[in-house]
Amino acid sequence: MKSNRRDFLKIASFAGAGAVAGTVIPGYAAQSESNLAGILKAVKKNHSQKFNMSGYAAPALPVVRIGIIGLGDRGSGAVERLSFIEGVEIKALCDKREVAVKGSQKYLQSIGRSAAQEFFNGEDDWKKLVELPDLDLIYTCTPWVLHTPICVYAMEHGKHAASEVPIARTVDEAWQLIETSERTRKHCMMLENCCYDFFELLTLNMARQGMFGDIIHGEGAYIHNLMGYNFKKPLDDRQADGAYTDMWRLKENAARNGNLYPTHGLGPICQVLNINRGDRLEYLSSVSTNDFTMAPKEKELAASDPFFAQWKDSKFRGNFNTTIIRTALGKSIMVQHDVSSVHPYSRIHLVKGTKGMAVKYPKQLIALGESWLKDEEMANMWAEHTPEIVKRIGEMAKEVGGHGGMDFIMDWRLIDCLRNGLPLDQNVYDGATWSSIAPLSEWSVANKSQSIDVPDFTSGSWKTNKPHGINLETGGTTKVLEVEKVGAEMQLNVK
Amino acid sequence: MKSNRRDFLKIASFAGAGAVAGTVIPGYAAQSESNLAGILKAVKKNHSQKFNMSGYAAPALPVVRIGIIGLGDRGSGAVERLSFIEGVEIKALCDKREVAVKGSQKYLQSIGRSAAQEFFNGEDDWKKLVELPDLDLIYTCTPWVLHTPICVYAMEHGKHAASEVPIARTVDEAWQLIETSERTRKHCMMLENCCYDFFELLTLNMARQGMFGDIIHGEGAYIHNLMGYNFKKPLDDRQADGAYTDMWRLKENAARNGNLYPTHGLGPICQVLNINRGDRLEYLSSVSTNDFTMAPKEKELAASDPFFAQWKDSKFRGNFNTTIIRTALGKSIMVQHDVSSVHPYSRIHLVKGTKGMAVKYPKQLIALGESWLKDEEMANMWAEHTPEIVKRIGEMAKEVGGHGGMDFIMDWRLIDCLRNGLPLDQNVYDGATWSSIAPLSEWSVANKSQSIDVPDFTSGSWKTNKPHGINLETGGTTKVLEVEKVGAEMQLNVK
Repeated sequence: MKSNRRDFLKIASFAGAGAVAGTVIPGYAAQSESNLAGILKAVKKNHSQKFNMSGYAAPALPVVRIGIIGLGDRGSGAVERLSFIEGVEIKALCDKREVAVKGSQKYLQSIGRSAAQEFFNGEDDWKKLVELPDLDLIYTCTPWVLHTPICVYAMEHGKHAASEVPIARTVDEAWQLIETSERTRKHCMMLENCCYDFFELLTLNMARQGMFGDIIHGEGAYIHNLMGYNFKKPLDDRQADGAYTDMWRLKENAARNGNLYPTHGLGPICQVLNINRGDRLEYLSSVSTNDFTMAPKEKELAASDPFFAQWKDSKFRGNFNTTIIRTALGKSIMVQHDVSSVHPYSRIHLVKGTKGMAVKYPKQLIALGESWLKDEEMANMWAEHTPEIVKRIGEMAKEVGGHGGMDFIMDWRLIDCLRNGLPLDQNVYDGATWSSIAPLSEWSVANKSQSIDVPDFTSGSWKTNKPHGINLETGGTTKVLEVEKVGAEMQLNVK
Repeated sequence: MKSNRRDFLKIASFAGAGAVAGTVIPGYAAQSESNLAGILKAVKKNHSQKFNMSGYAAPALPVVRIGIIGLGDRGSGAVERLSFIEGVEIKALCDKREVAVKGSQKYLQSIGRSAAQEFFNGEDDWKKLVELPDLDLIYTCTPWVLHTPICVYAMEHGKHAASEVPIARTVDEAWQLIETSERTRKHCMMLENCCYDFFELLTLNMARQGMFGDIIHGEGAYIHNLMGYNFKKPLDDRQADGAYTDMWRLKENAARNGNLYPTHGLGPICQVLNINRGDRLEYLSSVSTNDFTMAPKEKELAASDPFFAQWKDSKFRGNFNTTIIRTALGKSIMVQHDVSSVHPYSRIHLVKGTKGMAVKYPKQLIALGESWLKDEEMANMWAEHTPEIVKRIGEMAKEVGGHGGMDFIMDWRLIDCLRNGLPLDQNVYDGATWSSIAPLSEWSVANKSQSIDVPDFTSGSWKTNKPHGINLETGGTTKVLEVEKVGAEMQLNVK
């Protein structure tokens, strides 16, 4: 029977369209401002590692039973992607908007899966989902303020936790994740999908082979014009319109000033530099411009709609942030952020060694000397140095989709590691470290670009922790399902 | 008679080849380490402006009589370029190496010019040149440590001063230039040639027309592998071999740690942001990597040549430096520096506005929305927004050469301003500000990336100073000479 993944995806994306935005934010206002005064104390926290979660292999779970919280754009997409992976059971769905839960439920039904339990009764209904006895993994795609609370609650209730980026909004939250993961020995993975994009994995593999010499510097960014999304006024909860529920993302940008979203650019660079696995981030300084676009936009919108006047006195985040970080081994990283001005999308992804370099945006280029490789030489690099994980799953990932495939590679790898009892590529130390750059940058920006220490969340174990595997030395057994038409229905089967 | 500039340039470059390297450095060792402890005092120096040199028009000089000090690669090239400009008389030449002086003299002879006075008797012979009564401009191309001393001495002796980059190595030196220029009312121009490159001038013109919206961020760099040059051991003074005399550039890189060469990338960005003319640099933070290449190179060379053992205990400059700067109006600038690892050349030149952006390296790109312009749209930008200075002189500059033409545009503009009594594009405040980033970055690097104030060398006049002219609203009368063959000789004539 012929597989037909593309036709299937049309259904999938219809289901997704019925489930945009996210869960509402309890106590948002109270958490909306980073506790900048307290951050210096959190940075110097005296923590001794209870158990080293780097390299930790939890018992294998041949079947991974998942509850997904937050069924906005990211969560509904995750339901679809995860449904393609062998051994996954999506057992429970939660969103404060019933329409979102029903949308993903309808999708599961459309592929012949058992109905998931539904949770949409109020702000705290996610706790009931987490408390279910028959779940292995809580997969969180809510607004940022709920990431840490849900992950902590999940681990406390014996589940592994995976969360969208950033997994923590404050240094205190990052420490909560560390302490809970070490104490419960549950995985806590930040879903940094950009670590699984194709050029990032190619350059990571080349760096590990020493092709760039000693890596001395890296750059990453999240430069993406989100003005339209951030200022989109949501309709009521019974409709889906692509807006952020309760304008949560605008609230973040109206209450904090720094690099609020560092992990997309930083994650792949930290992997190249073996951060938390041979090296560590030591200190950073950060500068933000003023805001030149959001206050004018608020004024323009408020002139015709009083709804927007609630942001009248906001101190909007400065448009462009640049953060410089130094590592213990004397390397440097630059990370940038801008989501409120007009520009082509960029995550930069620059890897600079003593003998060569690579950069992804605006065009994928590699130099192994003083000139850029030509197109045919680039083709050879792809052919010779694509890591095993991409060879195994890359083409299927492109078909399934999710930012061109990287989302699916990430999900597949997560599930494959859980099913085979392998350490995760991205552990609690990575999520905590990468996410902490946001509040640390806020402090530096607020303090005239003075430098601030990055906490060592590994408690010194970075010196001996080993790099993660990208060549599937172990694992890689999990299959990707194919779609087939069964009567009028689509159905997923193991290929 | 047909002009034949290209044939001529073969002669010119032969003359140049006889004059590489530079003047020796008196007191180098004493000056080689920035006075990092004293820099905080220099930053807070209480200076009140004696006279505003921004916008200052000195009396017109229909003929500009020039003395050139330092006839290495840059100085000998300057002799050649200046000889193409109407109204220039090269009256005196100085280098501690007789061979360099004779080389440029031979060049002048070859084009039928009067012989220049020669100065090559010892370390201080440049002072005798400066003291000559019949000079208008002292043009300095020596090693860095002599830039400020020569410029100050020139202004004190009634001459305008122009110097290669950086024009000052310390904040104290920068203040010396400010005080001397304001008191003597003599121009003091840093020869920042990169401000005159074609894409830089195009984007400056577009920025001034508001095509990128509000400019919020800029980036520049000097990323150029100079390992071969910096470690080249010079022969004796009677030969020319392309090495830096007395290894002066390696000495800089062995004694200082920061961005030693910020001005190539920074100058054009400061012009786009109207720095010192409506905005000013307020503070910076800086990070350097460790050195991963120079110490190993020294060890490798010293193994077979004891000459190199003198650098055995050097603390070589960290390979890669990144500096972030904030301006008074809330814009940001990032500047990078690396001359000791392998990479394609880059000055970045990124101009980021609220509505679009431009970047020069690795490929010239402009976006006036969320996608990059296509080749034909780029051609339209060049056709419609090239500023008048490039239209007037650009094609001739490409023929004369000097980094693709920008050196010649710079020299021509300098001479044209002096001949017409116009303010210079780059005044003493620009040279001081741009150069000061080097010692300020050294301090920040040595102090864990803590931020440090950038002095306001304009004493507040930045608030009212006007941007410089790039469309030749005035001036532009100076002609470029053509070369013709007169018997067996080449000769320059007004076209």
